[in-house]
Amino acid sequence: MKEIKVFCPATIANISCGFDVLGVALDSVGDEMVIRKTSENGIRITRLEGQNLPMETLQNVAGVAGLALLAASDYSGGFEIEIYKKIKAGSGIGSSAASSTGAVWAMNELLGNPFSKLELVQFAMEGERLASGVSHADNVAPALFGGFTLVRGYEPLDIVPIPSPSELFATVIHPQIEVKTSDSRKILKTKITLADGIKQWGNVGGLVAGLFTNDYDLIGRSLVDYIVEPIRSILIPGFDEVKIAAIEAGALGCGISGSGPSIFALSKGEEKAVKVGNAMREIYQNIGIDYDVHVSKINLDGVRSISS
Amino acid sequence: MKEIKVFCPATIANISCGFDVLGVALDSVGDEMVIRKTSENGIRITRLEGQNLPMETLQNVAGVAGLALLAASDYSGGFEIEIYKKIKAGSGIGSSAASSTGAVWAMNELLGNPFSKLELVQFAMEGERLASGVSHADNVAPALFGGFTLVRGYEPLDIVPIPSPSELFATVIHPQIEVKTSDSRKILKTKITLADGIKQWGNVGGLVAGLFTNDYDLIGRSLVDYIVEPIRSILIPGFDEVKIAAIEAGALGCGISGSGPSIFALSKGEEKAVKVGNAMREIYQNIGIDYDVHVSKINLDGVRSISS
Repeated sequence: MKEIKVFCPATIANISCGFDVLGVALDSVGDEMVIRKTSENGIRITRLEGQNLPMETLQNVAGVAGLALLAASDYSGGFEIEIYKKIKAGSGIGSSAASSTGAVWAMNELLGNPFSKLELVQFAMEGERLASGVSHADNVAPALFGGFTLVRGYEPLDIVPIPSPSELFATVIHPQIEVKTSDSRKILKTKITLADGIKQWGNVGGLVAGLFTNDYDLIGRSLVDYIVEPIRSILIPGFDEVKIAAIEAGALGCGISGSGPSIFALSKGEEKAVKVGNAMREIYQNIGIDYDVHVSKINLDGVRSISS
Repeated sequence: MKEIKVFCPATIANISCGFDVLGVALDSVGDEMVIRKTSENGIRITRLEGQNLPMETLQNVAGVAGLALLAASDYSGGFEIEIYKKIKAGSGIGSSAASSTGAVWAMNELLGNPFSKLELVQFAMEGERLASGVSHADNVAPALFGGFTLVRGYEPLDIVPIPSPSELFATVIHPQIEVKTSDSRKILKTKITLADGIKQWGNVGGLVAGLFTNDYDLIGRSLVDYIVEPIRSILIPGFDEVKIAAIEAGALGCGISGSGPSIFALSKGEEKAVKVGNAMREIYQNIGIDYDVHVSKINLDGVRSISS
């Protein structure tokens, strides 16, 4: 195989209580990429549509992630990359992670799968380091593994796949405002109270248990963030209203996707997820902020090949 | 049925990363109690063997927990309680919780089970309030539900049963020193770093996932406490040495049981758990502190009736 076309899913990281550890992959929102083997060594971005992003290999997350893979492989050739962005950069649903993981997953396929998924996560994390200054795994892990993933820890990197109940759907609304990841990091406090910490890890345990047992109510009760959301949500106009509207429309829970500005909700069943999307939409219509809404089932496979 | 004899299991609370939320019930360590219906209203402790504890109803955790149940029931009679303590008070393996839960579970049986397990937890928590000043559920929940339990939160009380892999065994060593629960609470810091919090809830998620998937290695990797153990362990002479010895002997993980001074380890298989116990024992022999060692499989049922 010389060429492969892949779907690279959008992802929700920082799922409420699971700040920095829990993420999930979406099924109907994502980029497409074509990766092609070349005889000359190195990586070239030959096409980039849909977003205004750098095409120089060292300035592009897919390029940097691909170079990390190349450096670890004994392959003497190189790759060309075409990127068709559908995820908006800076929307908070893993735009950079989609490109990084799509690149390394596709390259691994073209090379006959010499690398494990855990190794691919580590290559893709180099793309994240370029994008945000931090080589975090909370978006690339679900993008590669699919479903929910827990990044248990980094020393060494430990990714734990968590199952997803079959009727769980995600709704994401992206208000078209800019929230810089660096700003949303900066406003976090470096200290939290032990009491809030205990409530938070109680909820992480509850959320993981609810996902294993298909207990939608438990999932809903656990989707609470005592620590980050109260601070970061002030950067997102309309957040509180959107959250109230989502819950009133029947969502199990609602929170900030990644570092925002997108807001996600989880619901039982597609019909509910659509209704939740409509309720969220109404808030931004009233406020007068443009938005995109996505409703998606949970993507259980992660990056996948699609027909060219 | 007029009388019932019950086994009331010892429990390990504060399982490493799961401070204040995760506990587990033991199978071969526990008290026995006999509860008998009486025609006169109220509760009397008629016998208390094995430990020097108050027999006045309002000073005894079983009495207080029983009164909470009585107050919520429409039963016009009362109960006599005999307590045969085998768990040492103050050892950190849920001595008071065993008495409180044994009392309310037995009374509920004698009344034809009018109360749910969750209600029984709430009655038993009144005993915990008497014992420690805090009506916490981390010992009474596993004592009543059996297996591992997560106290997801208190508003409202939310207990989540977590399965236990069949080959998981606990080893507990109780060095005979006194650590007051109030002291071990007092030395905790009220603030923690966000960075430690993230590592802690990553581990809680990993531990719960490991218990659901019988992944002993993941359980072991997750049994890490960045927050409480580093502080509380200074109250327990020999803790670091015991922990090192337990891990070297093959334990999956090792930490402080409850607020100490007991130290627990979890292992795969009984043979390993016994070996771990021997390694722990050696440390206190060398230091010259008396100790008890218990090796137990996980108790999956919680309090249970036994033949009189």
